[in-house]
Amino acid sequence: MSNSRILLTDAESGVSLDQYFLQAPGTVPLGGQPEWFVRLETLRGGKSEGVQVVTLNNGPQTVCVLPTRGMNIWKASLRGMEAGWRSPVEQLVHPRFVPVDHPNGLGWLHGFNELVARCGLASNGPPGDDAEGHPLENPLTLHGRVSNLPAHRLELMIEEGSPTTIRLEGVIDETSLFGTSLRLTSSLSMRLGSTECVIEDRITNLSGKMAEAQLLYHINVGSPILEEGARIIAPASEIAPRDARAAEGIPGWDVCGPPESGFTEQVYYLKPLTDDDDKAIVMMRNAAGNKGLSVHFDRRQLPYLSLWKNLAALSEGYVVGLEPATNYPNHRQFERSQGRVVSLEPGASHEARVRLTLHDGLEDVAYFEALAEGIAEGKEFTEHEEPRKGLVGWGVREWGVRRIW
Amino acid sequence: MSNSRILLTDAESGVSLDQYFLQAPGTVPLGGQPEWFVRLETLRGGKSEGVQVVTLNNGPQTVCVLPTRGMNIWKASLRGMEAGWRSPVEQLVHPRFVPVDHPNGLGWLHGFNELVARCGLASNGPPGDDAEGHPLENPLTLHGRVSNLPAHRLELMIEEGSPTTIRLEGVIDETSLFGTSLRLTSSLSMRLGSTECVIEDRITNLSGKMAEAQLLYHINVGSPILEEGARIIAPASEIAPRDARAAEGIPGWDVCGPPESGFTEQVYYLKPLTDDDDKAIVMMRNAAGNKGLSVHFDRRQLPYLSLWKNLAALSEGYVVGLEPATNYPNHRQFERSQGRVVSLEPGASHEARVRLTLHDGLEDVAYFEALAEGIAEGKEFTEHEEPRKGLVGWGVREWGVRRIW
Amino acid sequence: MSNSRILLTDAESGVSLDQYFLQAPGTVPLGGQPEWFVRLETLRGGKSEGVQVVTLNNGPQTVCVLPTRGMNIWKASLRGMEAGWRSPVEQLVHPRFVPVDHPNGLGWLHGFNELVARCGLASNGPPGDDAEGHPLENPLTLHGRVSNLPAHRLELMIEEGSPTTIRLEGVIDETSLFGTSLRLTSSLSMRLGSTECVIEDRITNLSGKMAEAQLLYHINVGSPILEEGARIIAPASEIAPRDARAAEGIPGWDVCGPPESGFTEQVYYLKPLTDDDDKAIVMMRNAAGNKGLSVHFDRRQLPYLSLWKNLAALSEGYVVGLEPATNYPNHRQFERSQGRVVSLEPGASHEARVRLTLHDGLEDVAYFEALAEGIAEGKEFTEHEEPRKGLVGWGVREWGVRRIW
Repeated sequence: MSNSRILLTDAESGVSLDQYFLQAPGTVPLGGQPEWFVRLETLRGGKSEGVQVVTLNNGPQTVCVLPTRGMNIWKASLRGMEAGWRSPVEQLVHPRFVPVDHPNGLGWLHGFNELVARCGLASNGPPGDDAEGHPLENPLTLHGRVSNLPAHRLELMIEEGSPTTIRLEGVIDETSLFGTSLRLTSSLSMRLGSTECVIEDRITNLSGKMAEAQLLYHINVGSPILEEGARIIAPASEIAPRDARAAEGIPGWDVCGPPESGFTEQVYYLKPLTDDDDKAIVMMRNAAGNKGLSVHFDRRQLPYLSLWKNLAALSEGYVVGLEPATNYPNHRQFERSQGRVVSLEPGASHEARVRLTLHDGLEDVAYFEALAEGIAEGKEFTEHEEPRKGLVGWGVREWGVRRIW
Repeated sequence: MSNSRILLTDAESGVSLDQYFLQAPGTVPLGGQPEWFVRLETLRGGKSEGVQVVTLNNGPQTVCVLPTRGMNIWKASLRGMEAGWRSPVEQLVHPRFVPVDHPNGLGWLHGFNELVARCGLASNGPPGDDAEGHPLENPLTLHGRVSNLPAHRLELMIEEGSPTTIRLEGVIDETSLFGTSLRLTSSLSMRLGSTECVIEDRITNLSGKMAEAQLLYHINVGSPILEEGARIIAPASEIAPRDARAAEGIPGWDVCGPPESGFTEQVYYLKPLTDDDDKAIVMMRNAAGNKGLSVHFDRRQLPYLSLWKNLAALSEGYVVGLEPATNYPNHRQFERSQGRVVSLEPGASHEARVRLTLHDGLEDVAYFEALAEGIAEGKEFTEHEEPRKGLVGWGVREWGVRRIW
Repeated sequence: MSNSRILLTDAESGVSLDQYFLQAPGTVPLGGQPEWFVRLETLRGGKSEGVQVVTLNNGPQTVCVLPTRGMNIWKASLRGMEAGWRSPVEQLVHPRFVPVDHPNGLGWLHGFNELVARCGLASNGPPGDDAEGHPLENPLTLHGRVSNLPAHRLELMIEEGSPTTIRLEGVIDETSLFGTSLRLTSSLSMRLGSTECVIEDRITNLSGKMAEAQLLYHINVGSPILEEGARIIAPASEIAPRDARAAEGIPGWDVCGPPESGFTEQVYYLKPLTDDDDKAIVMMRNAAGNKGLSVHFDRRQLPYLSLWKNLAALSEGYVVGLEPATNYPNHRQFERSQGRVVSLEPGASHEARVRLTLHDGLEDVAYFEALAEGIAEGKEFTEHEEPRKGLVGWGVREWGVRRIW
């Protein structure tokens, strides 16, 4: 089988398939399944009307990508073990039903239910004015615009090799006259038979002036990996709580409790450790150690890691977020003051590569846990009991009894 | 004929019919019409693009329901007599074209033209911050979100009986992470040959925490029922004007004048009287007493009634609103202070049943008028000449010369 | 061939064609093209999903009209010479993806990339509260709503004559209960073989009360007509800079420089001169004088002219705007104070006729240049070096280093 490229969407030439299916060549025996397949569907009904879902299956693994919602990953599964979570927002929501521009800047939360949600491109973090930022972007909205922008170009590539790679590439523009002109080129790829999928993103400054960018991967893990006794393995040189609420949880920050109605979220900021090649890892596994998810990322591209523990009732979204990023999810104005905003020359790009690996089985989990712990081995680790100046800043506001970002 | 259920929309399984038609079994003679029919259409063009309309006909009566717009009722008719009104907003407007989140909070009015518009679920009434409310909902928007949310599930049921009942049930979620998680399950049903249609709504708190809810039925009657000399029959123990403008109209509040260009709306707050079974009624009939509409509701579910007299020019929306509700349409913060906000335990529901009856013919009108007057008979009725403390609160702001909610 | 009318869209009767094609009757020889054609397409993919484009070709000239975006003209071309510009917003954007109601009021810029964009109907100019305006419209949003409203009725007319005329007419409502009720009826027509196209707009006050209206044609010319040395010919009695930045460019205001990264826009306000019949003209031609575009308008309908020089890098939108209008693009509150807001009685209309002519070839350019200069001949012309009181008012705010409207 040779390389092939299939154009699924191209706004410029008017291509946009509503349905598409491709499977491994060859006859599938009765009751069998193809070696791999790719399926594009367009959802119908309610707030999902018009949302496109591309399901990629490489044999053991299935990943659902959302070109209509910023190339986010809805969910993934490995041999029947699902990764994802149950948000109170049950259906996939088309951007037209997400009130991103609600005056409180928090409408993003009406559409948030994915395994991987991108936060960017011009900003992420809490809403509100950024006095030194681009005036057209003010007030910033929670976690930026990209999750509610559709790909205007979407291409499927089957790349011959040993093994063959399935790749889906989408292009999204976050542009306005006088304003931000950033382009995301996002590729998701899987090799046949692999338990990994690789996200490769490139943010390009299309404008003729300097531009700022921020990118955070909101990777959200719920049941069955998350459960009472589930563990977070995050090799780091330092961890600090975001606020007093998170400080309460510093002892045992890496262990998860059961769903608890009314639980107030706890957020931690980490400085990730890496191997000699700058590769960092953050992992979650269930209590028994036979289910897990690892996130591999490059510290040169994504230098910061946040953890979001939202151990609320199942109906409130019981979930832990693993969040490698170009910054901590404070307001952009604060992050800029700490030198944690990407600056792009005209035409320049920032790239980020994130590898997700699903684990089923004790051996598999143990192997990756050892790998992660190996990174931390013999290195110093500081657990701050209080929020650290410089790590935490504007954005940690109180909204009644709950902090909401 | 046996019971049957037809799934018209189900976002979860990807079902969404663009067109559907079902009629009574049996041959229809040439020039005749079926005993009943149900038709689903998807509108095309302009701001209506994508709006679904389900028309239910039970023989004498036709009702058009809008799954795309909060299960509102667009219009109804009885043997050719139309109930509804002519809003300056002429076409049905898809939620994507309703600027609900305009900073002034009044964008709801860009889509308002139905016979029955639901105001809720988390709030209704005027926009603006509710200091004790959920921070994610602030600032509240006029009359809440539900009228601009689509049903993600829609089912038609033909229920065998004597007579058979046609029922349409829709499910709508008003949800966001950390925010409101309310579900409306709304059913509209008609028995064959009947002049009534019945709305049965259930608002359920899907979250793990206490939630607030408000529900108001904005039932809007225009020509031909509304005309000079048309009468409102609203058995009540008290009526009070909302403001000085409404106070001017207390003498003769139950009689309607002709369309009057520049007429400023008048709103009245009533405490409805009921029969021994807590059933309340509010009715409108034309001057001749041969056309009318009655609204029957249960005071335990909808304890309050407001009247909205907007006797403006035809081009400005000549209309009277009959508004049974869980509250008066003041700002939610004021209504809470008066104990008029529904509070829902996790998993709990509030139910409301509203029955609309169309009347044509002198006898029919006279029968219902007597029924309504019978409720008031021998009971005390107080007409307050001034706004009453406790009934009227925050929300009655002046916007130039016109109050707009 | 006789007159014919083809209904392409009618929301009221549910007509909305996704595709349509009509061409001149008769056989087209192999390799030839029809004498004229009209094509309606519905775009697919990304933010363009659902945008309709009607392409009209009269032989030499092709014009693309956007019923989904306020009947704007996307682009036009004459025998291969394109008129239009390259906005940083590359694709056509469906209104659902334009954040018109972003709290900063500037979301309009996320969809701005047309040759002719209408600014209106209730207001144009910068965002912000208009204390004397209609409270439901406050805060005003940049350049109003009409460019992001779709036509609910669209009709194609082939009008027999010598020569035959192709006409496309769209109807758009900008309405809400209690708010603005303005209707735009917009026709675009071309005679076969002509290098002109004619826009005829009518704004009607549908309400029973007085209404205000504003209309500005944002006619945006980029490469290849715009280039270093391109000239603007704008017969006027006066020109004044909008602000200090524009004042810098008063010497040589009518000559264009090359694309310049970081160029800050310059805006000029002119009092147009006319021929004896009140006809005004504004023209742009390239340096060599063999490519150009003329705009003819009637000073009784559109008494004011603004020029927008945005000579930024190609990637930032290198463009000059020629803007005949009912007003200058200051905030409406200021324009009202200067008597430059249209006031409409109930049922009354304001009409505007704008004729665009494309020029290719030295002779053609020279002819129109002479025509334009003839209007100014012998008349006084005042170049103000500073902003003029009464011409410039509220709306010229600083947003960091850049003024953005």
